[in-house]
This record gives sequence, C-alpha cells and structure tokens, in this order.
Amino acid sequence: MEKLLQQIVFIKEMDKLKYILRKTKLLNSDRCENDAEHSWHLAVMTIVLAEHSNKPIDVLKVLKMVLIHDIVEIDAGDTFIYDSVKNHVNTDEEMLAAQRIFGLLPSEQAQEFISIWKEFEDCETDEAKFARSMDRLEPLLQNTSNNGGTWVEFNVPYEKVYEKKKVIANGSESIWKYAEQLINESVEKGILKKTFEIFLGKNCHHHPPSS
Amino acid sequence: MEKLLQQIVFIKEMDKLKYILRKTKLLNSDRCENDAEHSWHLAVMTIVLAEHSNKPIDVLKVLKMVLIHDIVEIDAGDTFIYDSVKNHVNTDEEMLAAQRIFGLLPSEQAQEFISIWKEFEDCETDEAKFARSMDRLEPLLQNTSNNGGTWVEFNVPYEKVYEKKKVIANGSESIWKYAEQLINESVEKGILKKTFEIFLGKNCHHHPPSS
Repeated sequence: MEKLLQQIVFIKEMDKLKYILRKTKLLNSDRCENDAEHSWHLAVMTIVLAEHSNKPIDVLKVLKMVLIHDIVEIDAGDTFIYDSVKNHVNTDEEMLAAQRIFGLLPSEQAQEFISIWKEFEDCETDEAKFARSMDRLEPLLQNTSNNGGTWVEFNVPYEKVYEKKKVIANGSESIWKYAEQLINESVEKGILKKTFEIFLGKNCHHHPPSS
Repeated sequence: MEKLLQQIVFIKEMDKLKYILRKTKLLNSDRCENDAEHSWHLAVMTIVLAEHSNKPIDVLKVLKMVLIHDIVEIDAGDTFIYDSVKNHVNTDEEMLAAQRIFGLLPSEQAQEFISIWKEFEDCETDEAKFARSMDRLEPLLQNTSNNGGTWVEFNVPYEKVYEKKKVIANGSESIWKYAEQLINESVEKGILKKTFEIFLGKNCHHHPPSS
C-alpha cells in the first residue's frame, strides 16, 4: 500500500501536464495544444505507424517514451523547438525536473522512468529514434493544416524546418519520404519560406512573411 | 506509401478527440477534461500501476486499449457514466462510430483496432479488466480533489458510485482497497451522500445536497 500511495502522488502530479501549452495549434484550429494531448497523439501515432520503423522496435518502450517525454516541462516549461536562445536538449533545468518529478515514484520505478526519459533525449537507440520521428511528425501535420502555423508566426525558414525534420529519417525512411513531400509542398504553397524570402519579406512591408 | 497515407488520415481524424469534453474536471479545477487528456492519463497510470494487476497482463495491449477506448466518442459523444437514460455500453451508435473511424485505417489494422476496442468494452479478459480499473480510478481521484465534483453536481449517491467503482477489484484488488477507502472517506467528508441523504437534501432547502 505504501508503494501504491507513492505512485498515486505521481499520477496526481501528472495532471499538471494538461496545463502546459505548446506553441503549435490543433489541426485547422487556433487553439494551442497541451502536452498531455500531444503525448497522447504521439502514442496513438506510434501504435498505428510502428510497422514503418527502419528497425524492429520494442513498441511498449516507444510508448513509455512518448507518454512521459515531456513530463519535465511541468517544472521546466515548454521550449519551442525553433527557439534560438534556449536549447531544449538536456538542460540542467530539465534534469532537475526529471529528478524531482520521477523521484515521486518508488525508487526502482523512478530509476526506470528517468532512464527511459534519458534514452529518448539521447536519441541513439532504435526506439528513441522512432519516438523522435513521431515527435517531429505531429507538428508538421499541424502546421501544414494551419497555413504554416508556427513557421509563419515565428518566421521559421524552410532550411531550419528541414534540418529539424530530417531526423524523421533516422526512425523511418518511409515516413520521412512523406514528411519531405509535405515540406516541399508547403514551400510551393508559400506557407513555408526560404531564408532569403523571409529576409526580403521582413524588409519590405508590402510583402509580410505571412502573406 | 498508399498504406501510410490511409494511416495519416486516421491520425488526423484522431485530433477531434481533443474537443470531446467529459463531465469530470481536472484535479482541483473547474476545467473539464477532454478525452485525449483522459486517455493519456490512463496510459500513464497503466505503466505506473501495471504491477498491481491481479493477473499477469500484456501491458502493450492494455495501453492500446486505453489509448483508443474513447475514440468512438468522436461520433457518438461522451456518455456520462451515471446517465440513467443513455447507457454507455455497446450502443449501436458506438459500433457505427467504431466502424467508420477505425475503418479509415488499412483493413487489417482496422480489424485489429476494432477487436481491441471490443475487448475493452466486453471487459472479460485480464487486460480489459485492468484497463477498466484505470478508467474507473481516474475520475475518483478527480472528484475527491474537487469537493465531490460530478457526484455533487449531478446528485450521484454513494450506492451508485460504489457499484460502478467496485469493478476496479476485477483488475486489481490492491487498487480497489485504496479506491474503497477514498469512497468511504468521501462519505465521511460529506462530499458523497447516501441515497436517503440526497432524498432528504432535495426535499429540504435548508440542507442542499452540496452542503
């Protein structure tokens, strides 16, 4: 019972993830997605798309990864992937958050969860690579449904998007083929601009970046 | 690629679950929970609490169940568990919804998902029983954190709550022991009333049910 009570404390703490808002919006919407919704969507994507993984993967482990990958944001907040000041990867702040939040669990389980979270962050195993590809694909579906979404809102150029998204290929070549096509179509539609276009747009008020 | 495109259509359709509101509210909150958040929370509960299952379970299967168990509500809407008119279990409406929504997937996968969903609904396998116990536990945590929440709001008596919650024991005796304790404490605190108390409360304006 002692152990169960500790686990319940953790489960209640998890509720806070429902309040952490991401920059990206729901499909065809102007409502921001929260981290709980995002994590659920990645989990559903994982069970639907697992067969496209480059390598055979332990789907249960990928699910654990995507379900908890953003939990540290309860303390550290959401870091926008295209933020040029604050880097998302392995900040001290996130490690402290992991230790506090997973530390609510019985110690053996806390260690297991921290290790799964670090595995996702390090992105070296086949499971982590596939989980990462899910995490990169979802906002691509969102932004393309929202006339460019955060790309337009924050002047993110094609080159940066391409660089961030191409890691999808490490998890799944076939999903990357689809994603790359979405990116190229976005450029054609004008909802994703190349760097020089944004530069020109920014210096010419007749052609704002969102036009 | 053909198969992937079908799967992407399904994944986009899933976004709609983020708009389906439940009656229960987030912990210590007056904001309704949506089905995507709810499903995510059950999935996290599953990986944390699986060890308490009465029987050894296939955790991956339980996760698939809880991740998709409410998907039919995209078409059929949320049915309140204590609704006395509309029964939640296996309505024709839900079966039609399952066929339409899961039918967006490639046919073999559609069959697999419909079968997992039905297994959850039928609640006969060990996996379904554990998944169901998660589905019953979460709103209990919510209502006890919200001064009775939906119990007070909709005059749901102790006897009905006890009847709905006791199925937790089929998935986990130890979790049920904890849940039963929460229910009893709620009666002591007056945030969950017995039938005769609600009856008296309703007929006596000096003692409204929420007092």
